[in-house]
Amino acid sequence: MSPIATTPKPPYYAVIFTSLKHPDDQGYTEMADRMVERVQQQEGFLGFESAREAVGITVSYWRDLASIQAWRADLEHREAQQKGKELWYRSYTIRIAKVEREYSL
Amino acid sequence: MSPIATTPKPPYYAVIFTSLKHPDDQGYTEMADRMVERVQQQEGFLGFESAREAVGITVSYWRDLASIQAWRADLEHREAQQKGKELWYRSYTIRIAKVEREYSL
Repeated sequence: MSPIATTPKPPYYAVIFTSLKHPDDQGYTEMADRMVERVQQQEGFLGFESAREAVGITVSYWRDLASIQAWRADLEHREAQQKGKELWYRSYTIRIAKVEREYSL
Repeated sequence: MSPIATTPKPPYYAVIFTSLKHPDDQGYTEMADRMVERVQQQEGFLGFESAREAVGITVSYWRDLASIQAWRADLEHREAQQKGKELWYRSYTIRIAKVEREYSL
């Protein structure tokens, strides 16, 4: 899989997840790997891109708002979300955005 | 400035710039620093977030499409875009998206 997602012609949706982590792992890496596997089986999932330096940025791409809602409600993902709040993240922002245009080189 | 951008209540716009760089710097770091300074003086600029590992992700936030267009047409920025194509990037994708919802922890 290329680290730049291959996405269809817009419109489609992006979830921009920006986070500051606590330094300790506390099970984060294992859960993140599981979520990466699991999200790729979700209906409507189109791809994702991720990088972390001072801040972590993960952008996932989705066919529509309904598929984002279904992923948000996934039971294993909800467990991850809960641990994220309690253990892993100092702070985060989630933005849901409709991609209107796309250009590539 | 926090590495997570502080943005107003949606709607506003996000430009998601995802890139793969060539290994040589070739003036990239100096230009990137200048662009970070310059973009913050742009009308309608709301903030940005950036991280690079295998892939570089920079998300900039904007009041509206007109302010994105004005930044795209900025002369110094156009010079940077040209050098990006010729020297710095193996590939990139730019996505323009309307942020509809935002949640924070």
